[in-house]
This record gives sequence, C-alpha cells and structure tokens, in this order.
Amino acid sequence: MDTIKATMQNKNALNETGDNLRTVFYVSDGTAITSETIGRSMLTRFPDVPFQVYVIPYVDSMEKADSAVDHINQAYQKDGVKPLVFDTIVDDKIRERINQADAFNLDIYEGLIGKISEELNVTPAPHTVNAHGDVDSEIYKDRIDAVHFALDNDDGARTHHYTAADIILIGVSRSGKTPTSLYLALQFGIRAANYPLTEDDLYENTLPKALQPYKDKLFGLVIDTDRLAKIRQERKADSRYASYRQCQQELQAVQGIYISQGIPNIDVSTMSIEEIATRILQMTGLKRRFG
Amino acid sequence: MDTIKATMQNKNALNETGDNLRTVFYVSDGTAITSETIGRSMLTRFPDVPFQVYVIPYVDSMEKADSAVDHINQAYQKDGVKPLVFDTIVDDKIRERINQADAFNLDIYEGLIGKISEELNVTPAPHTVNAHGDVDSEIYKDRIDAVHFALDNDDGARTHHYTAADIILIGVSRSGKTPTSLYLALQFGIRAANYPLTEDDLYENTLPKALQPYKDKLFGLVIDTDRLAKIRQERKADSRYASYRQCQQELQAVQGIYISQGIPNIDVSTMSIEEIATRILQMTGLKRRFG
Repeated sequence: MDTIKATMQNKNALNETGDNLRTVFYVSDGTAITSETIGRSMLTRFPDVPFQVYVIPYVDSMEKADSAVDHINQAYQKDGVKPLVFDTIVDDKIRERINQADAFNLDIYEGLIGKISEELNVTPAPHTVNAHGDVDSEIYKDRIDAVHFALDNDDGARTHHYTAADIILIGVSRSGKTPTSLYLALQFGIRAANYPLTEDDLYENTLPKALQPYKDKLFGLVIDTDRLAKIRQERKADSRYASYRQCQQELQAVQGIYISQGIPNIDVSTMSIEEIATRILQMTGLKRRFG
Repeated sequence: MDTIKATMQNKNALNETGDNLRTVFYVSDGTAITSETIGRSMLTRFPDVPFQVYVIPYVDSMEKADSAVDHINQAYQKDGVKPLVFDTIVDDKIRERINQADAFNLDIYEGLIGKISEELNVTPAPHTVNAHGDVDSEIYKDRIDAVHFALDNDDGARTHHYTAADIILIGVSRSGKTPTSLYLALQFGIRAANYPLTEDDLYENTLPKALQPYKDKLFGLVIDTDRLAKIRQERKADSRYASYRQCQQELQAVQGIYISQGIPNIDVSTMSIEEIATRILQMTGLKRRFG
C-alpha cells in the first residue's frame, strides 16, 4: 500500500511541540482527487488546526482496504487523537471496512446512492471501475486532441487553424492565457487557442489581422497591474517588460481594444485557473465536449 | 444567472418520447467542479436513466441562490418529476435556500462542517471566498511555473533544463506523455519534462545520451499495441508510423529498455489522465508542490 504524503494544511498553526497536529487521510477507490478537494475545502474553516495530510488512492480491494485501515490505526496510535478520514468509495463493502478504522470517518458517499436509488425508483447497477475515470475512448480522444490543439496554437504560434478553435484567448504577455487554454482542454475537451497582444498590436488600437476573421471566438483576459508586474518581475527581473509603467500601459491599451471591439473579458487577478475556465464557460455559453 | 448546459449523461437510455429524462443540477458557490465530479460518479450507477445536466457555478449570494432556485423550479414544472440537485455550498444560509427548491436535494456538505467542528472541538471560522480557490499567490506561481516548465520541456524540445525537472516521462510517440506532464503541472505543481523515444533511440537498446545523467528521474509509459495503432491512425492515417507492426516493434523495444535500465513504468491503456498522474505519484513517492 503506497500512501502519498501531501504537504501540510495550515502549517503555520503548528505549536512548538507539534502536539496540536491532526492527521487527515483522503481515501478513495479512484485517484482520491475528489475526496481531497472536498476535505481541503471543509478544513479551510479550521485555519488554526495544523493538518498532516495523507492520500491513499486506488483502494479497490479488501486487501487494500485492510492495509489502509492499518495506516490509519497507526496514525491514531502515534497521535493519540483520531485521524480524520474523508473517503469517496463507491463499493459498499470496501467503504464499510474503511469505516471500521480507529478514526473520525467522514464518509462522503454514505447513503447517497441509496437516496438516489429510492428517488429514481431504480436499483443501482453494480459498481464498475469506470465510475471515476474517463477511459471511454471517445472522451479520452477529445481531451488529448484538445490538449494537442492548445499546444499547437499556443502563444500565437500558428493562426491558420483558428477555424477549428472553440475559443481564442487574448491578452497581454503573462496574463494567464496558456494555463487557461490547457485547463479548458484537459477538463472540458475545449479547443482553445491563445494569442498574445504585444506592443505592436496594442498601439494600433485595433485587432491584429490574424484575429479579425474570428472576432466571435475571442475572449480577453485582464489582470491587475501590480500582479502582472510581479509575475513579469519573476520572469525578467528589472526589465522594461516588468516595469509597473509598461504593464499599466499595456493593460490600458488592451482594455481599450476589448471595449472598442466588444470583446467579452474578465479580470483574472484573484482567480484560480479552475475559476477562470468556469467563468469563461459561463460567460460564453461555450459547449463542453464532455462533462 | 448563467447556467452552463453540459452534455447529457447516459444519452443512449433516452426513450423515443424523451419522457424518461431526469434533470440534474450541479450547484456551487465555486466552480461546481467538485459537485459535478461527485454527482457524475454517483450517477454512473444508474446507466439506464438519461440525465440532462446543468451546472450553476458561483452561487455566492442570496440573489444568485434565488435565481438558481427559479431555474430548478422551472425544470420541475417542465419535467413533472423532481430534478436532482447536487450542491457543495459552504455558506449555511445560501445552502439552506438552495435546499428549498422543488427538487430532490443531495447536499454534499450538509452536516460535514458541524461534525468536524464537534470532533476537533473548534468553532469553524466564517466561510471565506478562498475555500474553493487557490488564489494564494505562491501556489498560483508554482502551478504556472510548472505549466511553463512542461511546455518548454515538452517532447524532448530541450534537455538542458533536466536538472530542474521533478520527473522526466519517456515513451514512444503518442503514449500520453504530454497530457500527463501538463496535468502533473496543473494539478500538483510538479515540473514534468517529457522525452519521446524514437526509432533511433529504441534500436540502440540503451538510453539516449541526453537522458543518461537523469536516470533517477525517468518514468516510462507503456500502452497497448491496438490502442496506440488506433491513436496514431487518427493522426497519420495508413502510415508506416500507424501500422500495427511498427507500433508493436516500438513497444517491445521500449519495454526492453525499461527492463534493462530498471526504469519504473506503467501501462496507461485503460487509464484516464488523472489516474496516470496519481499512479505516478504513488509509485515514485514524488512530492507534490502543493495540495
């Protein structure tokens, strides 16, 4: 049984002797990404408790469940307080085995299947390995194709495939276009190109020629001047490129283009990549290729 | 209020009149990615029910909650059966408002915070907007840096940054190296380079020179011959590159290298990208930079 030791949550809250630590396990028969996402979100409500985090993915047999229970029980022995266990396990028997550990169990799926079954008046089918994955080959293909599309059309590298793009992200250098394009591809199978608006483009106060035929696909990113300057500073310290003044001018110019051309746009300064991608879907009505 | 209409789940189960359809809402004060992941996983257990899926993200005020309730109630009016509502909302008041809709409510967070609070004997802090995001700027920077690292070191493009790599994925062309590198970067902030083993490399039956100093960082991907041939066929139809024989020879050679050089490897044929990434973490003990 291989557990993955993750970084601590609320590390700053550790006292000198470290005896206020709580151990947390995220356990799943799949990747445990969902279990961890839920748990982390819940635990942000307890910022003064330092949590030592372990992830145990792929608990998909009774042997692995036994081994996970051993790990959890050892943490209980060591800490003297019950570890928190967040689990998202679809198989009833395996879930029940995990629930027998000496732990405070937060069983996310408990009862959910039964409730849904009652409401739908349909007996649930047996759990299949596919419950967590997307090994469905069509979906896999869409994702991979979208990732390669994003890569081939990153940073304005090519513009002759824009007819095949679902969306073209525009913005100044380092405003988050590339990670957002890739996330849209990986998470939703969306073909996102991106094109950097450089000084040459900006001071024309119009759209670059390559973009003009695709105005309906354009979506602009905006970012706070301080934040942009900081990001650029890390890339090219003390350059004109990273100066506050330069960042400010580019951002003003880019917003002028968005307004004059009627291009939808968002300020990504305080957003995670997931949030940027979700807002874009919400604002554009763009169809996800799966999900 | 903008809802995102997603594709249907179990579309094939639709009857001719479409009257066996159930509407499903994924509602959240954040991106709703977690709510949807949980819901989709649960609903795989009901493969004979066609689900029409809507996502309502960013329900972070009472006004938006009212609007979401209107949407849900309209679906109830239209369908004549209660929609399923999966929600992950941290704020108690907003959650309670959503629970008042004419729907079958599956409230994922209900009671979880209270239970944890009781076990920890700590009063929960007020919900902050940060609960779902990673706007923490250090984490954001790690993710973005890792994404740019993956891009700069994709497909063997450069090899002189390998000292900075956390891992170097190797494998034959189209075995999933690039999407996996990007996912490791986006999800875990891991700096993953990737290097394609081409015919020239393979028939030497040793590691390419560029990789030899970094043997400890190498991780091999393997894929089923049929699947590889199918993927390559879509890329270059009827080429030698896509032929079963060529794929088989390359895969045999690459596995020979993994074995002779003692390089850990996995067969990714039936895995989603999330699964490949999680297995790699589990097998290598690689530290995540966050999470």
